[in-house]
Amino acid sequence: MSDSLANGAGKIEGGIVTAAVLVIGDEILSGRTKDKNIGYIAEYLTGIGIDLKEVRVVPDEEAEIVAAVNALRARYTYLFTTGGIGPTHDDITAECVAKALGVPIDFHPGAVEIMQARVAATGGVMNEARMRMTRVPIGGELVLNRISGAPGFWIGNVIVMAGIPSVMQAMLEYVTPRLKTGARMLSETVRADLREGDIGTALGEIAKSNPDVVIGSYPFQDENGKANTNVVVRSRDSQKLAAAKAAVEAMLVRIKVELAKA
Amino acid sequence: MSDSLANGAGKIEGGIVTAAVLVIGDEILSGRTKDKNIGYIAEYLTGIGIDLKEVRVVPDEEAEIVAAVNALRARYTYLFTTGGIGPTHDDITAECVAKALGVPIDFHPGAVEIMQARVAATGGVMNEARMRMTRVPIGGELVLNRISGAPGFWIGNVIVMAGIPSVMQAMLEYVTPRLKTGARMLSETVRADLREGDIGTALGEIAKSNPDVVIGSYPFQDENGKANTNVVVRSRDSQKLAAAKAAVEAMLVRIKVELAKA
Repeated sequence: MSDSLANGAGKIEGGIVTAAVLVIGDEILSGRTKDKNIGYIAEYLTGIGIDLKEVRVVPDEEAEIVAAVNALRARYTYLFTTGGIGPTHDDITAECVAKALGVPIDFHPGAVEIMQARVAATGGVMNEARMRMTRVPIGGELVLNRISGAPGFWIGNVIVMAGIPSVMQAMLEYVTPRLKTGARMLSETVRADLREGDIGTALGEIAKSNPDVVIGSYPFQDENGKANTNVVVRSRDSQKLAAAKAAVEAMLVRIKVELAKA
Repeated sequence: MSDSLANGAGKIEGGIVTAAVLVIGDEILSGRTKDKNIGYIAEYLTGIGIDLKEVRVVPDEEAEIVAAVNALRARYTYLFTTGGIGPTHDDITAECVAKALGVPIDFHPGAVEIMQARVAATGGVMNEARMRMTRVPIGGELVLNRISGAPGFWIGNVIVMAGIPSVMQAMLEYVTPRLKTGARMLSETVRADLREGDIGTALGEIAKSNPDVVIGSYPFQDENGKANTNVVVRSRDSQKLAAAKAAVEAMLVRIKVELAKA
């Protein structure tokens, strides 16, 4: 199909490719399971040149999932979902994505084949519950994984993955060569050895005069138990990044001299 | 003020109190910082009888924060935000909440006093950056914390907290006695010693015939390396919970007998 992920694969020179993550699952919202996928996907996408712009976590409720899928797939290049693709009644992601896209859902012959082979190998029976896992919205393509065997799928710009971290990671790896990617956001960290409150105003001025650079300030307690700050400078342009980093370093020297005098 | 959190504090008999969490920060979306607050808040709120219904993570961008604050505060009893209340230019949560609520923002005398005492104790100077941290939307009340001293605030049903986990946790503790809470969602976990695919259909039938009980199914690899399943049964009604749990346990016995025969 024309909007298959694979058709648009490759690097878009200087372009910006965006993504959202939708985590589906009551167990995350109840606190029973601590999500490990958001941070992993965030770091992974940043590394391949896709900007993660938004994350949502919603319960296993059809109306919530459908609304979130439609809101997020409309705004970003890709929507990655995690969770809700197992064999039980609370696994409703596939139906919800079909509803959101307005397409029917059916057993996918390739998924059935994979599940049959898996069931034969593990001594189970191919029952109704396991057949549930082979349903894919019409037009969807399988997302394979080496870990559990059970596939996810992609349709349009929506990539549906498992919630189990090792399986999700294998699926992300599978789709990576098929994704469009943009210019990578480069990043440098400068340790200030000053408190955030000491550098805030001067850092704001540097941020204002470097509009193509995003400057973040992150307080931390250092190895001596002192309040310290990491300044993170990010840009897609390595020269602009270097200029902003140099400005931050010069500012830190200046403030240290001022504070020593005071 | 009439919509102060404190005015509605206490347990609502049989009632349902809901919440959303809004995580604000580029560092979470870039993967540089791994969020530790979502899971903590989820478990904490469940424990005191507040249902976490949705989580969003957005970047340090005004339009995104304002839109998310307005979407979430309208839908749930409470909105808890984390991040963006430090002294640097990328800390814009307070302004954004003021914009979302349509109220002006100004230095809060109580916050100024706290910051002055803190600065005096740590040998800093009360500069423009530190004054930024004392701005609170008009009508907001301070949310104190024993860890860093620097306060968050609440206004209407929005509770604005720090991003640093230890500080956020202290703020959550501070607001707890002032929150409305509902009937606690009770939860029981039954270890199936069967694979999800073996129990899916029967579990779905139990879920259908127990409408006041939420049944979740979570696969895991057990200590023998075998695919196993935890069935989690949740309800606000302890008798309905016990009945559903008993039905799950009976079903597991039945399926084990069937599989042994096959």
